[in-house]
Amino acid sequence: MFSRYLPILEWGRTYNRNVLTDDLMAAVIVTIMLIPQSLAYALLAGLPPVVGLYASILPLVLYAVFGTSRTLAVGPVAVISLMTASAAGAIAEQGTAQYLEAAITLAMLSGVMLAILGILRAGFLANLLSHPVISGFITASGILIATSQLKHILGVTAGGDNWPDMLGSLAASIDETNGWTLAIGIPATMFLFWVRKGAKPALQKVGLPERAADMTAKAGPVVAVALTILAAIAFDLQDKGVNIVGAIPQGLPPFAVPSTDLALIEQLWVPALLISIIGFVESVSVAQTLAAKRRQRISPDQELIGLGAANVASAFSGGYPVTGGFARSAVNFDAGAQTPAAGAYTAVGIALATLFLTPLLFSLPIATLAATIIVAVLSLVDLKTPGRLWRYSKADFAAHIATIAITLIAGVEMGVIAGVVVGLLLYLWRASRPHAAIVGRVPETEHFRNVERHEVFTVPHVLSIRIDEALTYLNARWLEEYVLEEVAERPAVRHVILMCSAVNAIDASGLESLEAINHRLGDGGIGLHLSEVKGPVMDRLQRSHFLEELNGQVFLSQSRAFEKLASDDGAPPEPHDHYLARGLI
Amino acid sequence: MFSRYLPILEWGRTYNRNVLTDDLMAAVIVTIMLIPQSLAYALLAGLPPVVGLYASILPLVLYAVFGTSRTLAVGPVAVISLMTASAAGAIAEQGTAQYLEAAITLAMLSGVMLAILGILRAGFLANLLSHPVISGFITASGILIATSQLKHILGVTAGGDNWPDMLGSLAASIDETNGWTLAIGIPATMFLFWVRKGAKPALQKVGLPERAADMTAKAGPVVAVALTILAAIAFDLQDKGVNIVGAIPQGLPPFAVPSTDLALIEQLWVPALLISIIGFVESVSVAQTLAAKRRQRISPDQELIGLGAANVASAFSGGYPVTGGFARSAVNFDAGAQTPAAGAYTAVGIALATLFLTPLLFSLPIATLAATIIVAVLSLVDLKTPGRLWRYSKADFAAHIATIAITLIAGVEMGVIAGVVVGLLLYLWRASRPHAAIVGRVPETEHFRNVERHEVFTVPHVLSIRIDEALTYLNARWLEEYVLEEVAERPAVRHVILMCSAVNAIDASGLESLEAINHRLGDGGIGLHLSEVKGPVMDRLQRSHFLEELNGQVFLSQSRAFEKLASDDGAPPEPHDHYLARGLI
Repeated sequence: MFSRYLPILEWGRTYNRNVLTDDLMAAVIVTIMLIPQSLAYALLAGLPPVVGLYASILPLVLYAVFGTSRTLAVGPVAVISLMTASAAGAIAEQGTAQYLEAAITLAMLSGVMLAILGILRAGFLANLLSHPVISGFITASGILIATSQLKHILGVTAGGDNWPDMLGSLAASIDETNGWTLAIGIPATMFLFWVRKGAKPALQKVGLPERAADMTAKAGPVVAVALTILAAIAFDLQDKGVNIVGAIPQGLPPFAVPSTDLALIEQLWVPALLISIIGFVESVSVAQTLAAKRRQRISPDQELIGLGAANVASAFSGGYPVTGGFARSAVNFDAGAQTPAAGAYTAVGIALATLFLTPLLFSLPIATLAATIIVAVLSLVDLKTPGRLWRYSKADFAAHIATIAITLIAGVEMGVIAGVVVGLLLYLWRASRPHAAIVGRVPETEHFRNVERHEVFTVPHVLSIRIDEALTYLNARWLEEYVLEEVAERPAVRHVILMCSAVNAIDASGLESLEAINHRLGDGGIGLHLSEVKGPVMDRLQRSHFLEELNGQVFLSQSRAFEKLASDDGAPPEPHDHYLARGLI
Repeated sequence: MFSRYLPILEWGRTYNRNVLTDDLMAAVIVTIMLIPQSLAYALLAGLPPVVGLYASILPLVLYAVFGTSRTLAVGPVAVISLMTASAAGAIAEQGTAQYLEAAITLAMLSGVMLAILGILRAGFLANLLSHPVISGFITASGILIATSQLKHILGVTAGGDNWPDMLGSLAASIDETNGWTLAIGIPATMFLFWVRKGAKPALQKVGLPERAADMTAKAGPVVAVALTILAAIAFDLQDKGVNIVGAIPQGLPPFAVPSTDLALIEQLWVPALLISIIGFVESVSVAQTLAAKRRQRISPDQELIGLGAANVASAFSGGYPVTGGFARSAVNFDAGAQTPAAGAYTAVGIALATLFLTPLLFSLPIATLAATIIVAVLSLVDLKTPGRLWRYSKADFAAHIATIAITLIAGVEMGVIAGVVVGLLLYLWRASRPHAAIVGRVPETEHFRNVERHEVFTVPHVLSIRIDEALTYLNARWLEEYVLEEVAERPAVRHVILMCSAVNAIDASGLESLEAINHRLGDGGIGLHLSEVKGPVMDRLQRSHFLEELNGQVFLSQSRAFEKLASDDGAPPEPHDHYLARGLI
């Protein structure tokens, strides 16, 4: 009972020295990776760099207690940082106390929402984001994020919430490019690109074993950070107009009580909800992928609670919204983390860094952090998906492209909303006009197939229609129109058989449509019959008056229905002859 | 081509004297019925009575040109009048010029929206309102409307947009009840109730033939109007505190240019959209019911254009939102209307009334109009549906009750929105956890049935799963979890067969889940096989790389798949052996 809501009780019982060693090892590696990332993503969110560190301490501890993934590494991530910048930017200017307050409030709201969704077991809401919408959103976010960082590489001031504005703003300020900043930014970007692909083989060539080479390559950003700090000090770059991180407050995160300003909450709840859902979807995908590799399982509803607790903790310690990140979780996994305790040890590592390392980062050029971000997010841009979707499904392609276009043009919030809405509309459109086929018997068999696809046997006075969809309110109107239209085109028809082998459910609206069809066909002396009704559907029909009013029969199999009605001698249908229905259950 | 958008071109060609006579006859009867109704519904909408007449002239002519129903009678209706009052009341006080402007703007916006939906052929959006939601909304609206009119029967001043407010406001002012108003209102209400049920048999008893008795009974409201006007004059009721209609401007509707105030449009577009959708759903249901009785057909998309034109016409002639009404359309149908021209003749009748009859209505007590409304709307309240839904489907029951409760408590707009949202959430919830069953072979047959419902044959190393739902993004996550969970529970499994006889579609997200399942099962040396894949689904799978990567085979029938894999001798699955798939198309 307790262990359902507190997974720590389960893995904690079997914790031992071996597991501790593995977890500590992984924590050291993730800590080294997370320090520059936290600073960089705080920058992307428009916040002081130290806020990124704060968001990487307490949230990790809380996730370790409540989360179900053994290897997920929680903290600031690129897309959520961009969404935070967009939402807080609508409230106040970057750099103001109101802006920071808005970011903290977002973490609070998002944490509470995630926890509530978890308690309500409403994780299914994340299903509203289809794969094409998510991948479109991630691609567009990657483009937006990379573009937003170009100003730091150039050393100019520029703004914009969407792509056209960003590009325009960049173009307007390109004259002010600072050569020294460029001289840091471009080499740093190139080095980090090389580290991604080329460092591991190079390190192996000089004799490192594969795993060590891989781990060392992951520390590439730390090398870039160290080298550019040295360069900044050596060439006194701050005086030459290069922006540096500057003084970072030393010490543990402050205890902060998040705002309870209702007006602020009213302005922020929609972006907070979007941040929650995107964060949850990203985190769960990562967690599921990693869990499957070790044949472990995660519980999506409990993950909501874990992420909710992490975000609330972030808010109370002066941080901003966090979630499970792909890159760092993969590193954690590869480095051998066994339990969520690895996350707690990482938190200790970051706390130590906050206490003792921040003075070393004083001269770190902002351009280096921008380069870290650009290299990280460009891997999010996926250019293969559009072509693949185009070939497979035009509707999914449309949802994907619409999400990319609207995210680029109207910003991240509108992008997510548009993706959900477009996806739903396309789904509803398809559900409202399902596939149905007139079927006939394949000669010498008991199989019935589409008359347009196969050579089959039919008789003029019996019309067999197979409906390939649940009968729900979304297609109730269509059903009436379709059946009556097909009957109207065939004056000889005296019996209609609805073959229900693919009808997985009939809701109240579908039932009303069936009643209307039964009634109207009855007016014209035409019998309505059902065949191959599934067990659960039949159980439900028994609870209505439909079967008593049915102007025909319910048959166990389509072939029996066709056989009996095809040999019908022309007598009018018997309105209440449904003995077969009684025997079916 | 033209006749698709202008149905008048079709029926106009065969128009002759016989049809003319029928149409004229129907028009006279509908006109007599429509005069008191128009005044009453304008009152309900909080507008001057004459606005109801204006809304019953030009809109009818435009619908006659663009509409596809031969018998639908367009004009002000109760529910739309209530929605208009609610939306315009949020902008200004009743009786002000701003209030009237808001009502006219609603007609304009609603007309434009309907026409756009029609041109986009987006009538399927009306499907978002399920039958339980619509009937809940209509029931709650009936209760709200009847309650809102009680103040006119009592002769007091009261307000409120929702039921608790209305009842509170009534209770607070009940001391001020005007006895003379009550003396008009109560008999008028009783008389109209009697007319509904008792007048026809009574008239038949005194010797009128059935049809004439029916039509005369329909004129009951006119009798009530005439009698109470005479009473008001005879007893000088205006001086005794009874509210009367007073001076109605004589003359044809003014030509009015609707407002293009953007701020107003921004405030009104949501209610206008709701009015459009509710109006469309109500109108199309009526039109379809009547068309089916004469084996005619209507085109829902063209209906959108017809109703759109009618509403734009209403706005340009000083009217408010209109749609097809049930009662008056039924009268039109019963009175023998043959073509939409009957509507145009009705418009002429109302125009004549506006020119010449309005002085006669000076002394008409408002209480009489309120009685007309109360009697009309109480028939909308449907008390049988909740019980019927409870027995058939708890989810539909929940949507129905939620719609009633929220409409009563939070008003009509929130009611419609809540109904749509609750309906969608329940639908998505069900779609996100579809029915699936582990199946086995029914002994001595080729049929496969649920192992929990039937005595069937299975083997430990083959797991057959039948999925009873299209694989879409809504259940993609569920699919992965379900299949992997079932496999994890059965360590002996070496082959998984997904029986796809009820899988009507696989979208890109479903495909990705299948790929993930294939990949993960493959990692564990388990083969993934598909059986009974439908033609259109297979066509689409051929366009992806899935079949090439499939870690198993595609079988035409489940029994062939089971036979082959059950006799498998334990050799590992052959990853690229899918020759059967090639032969299937």
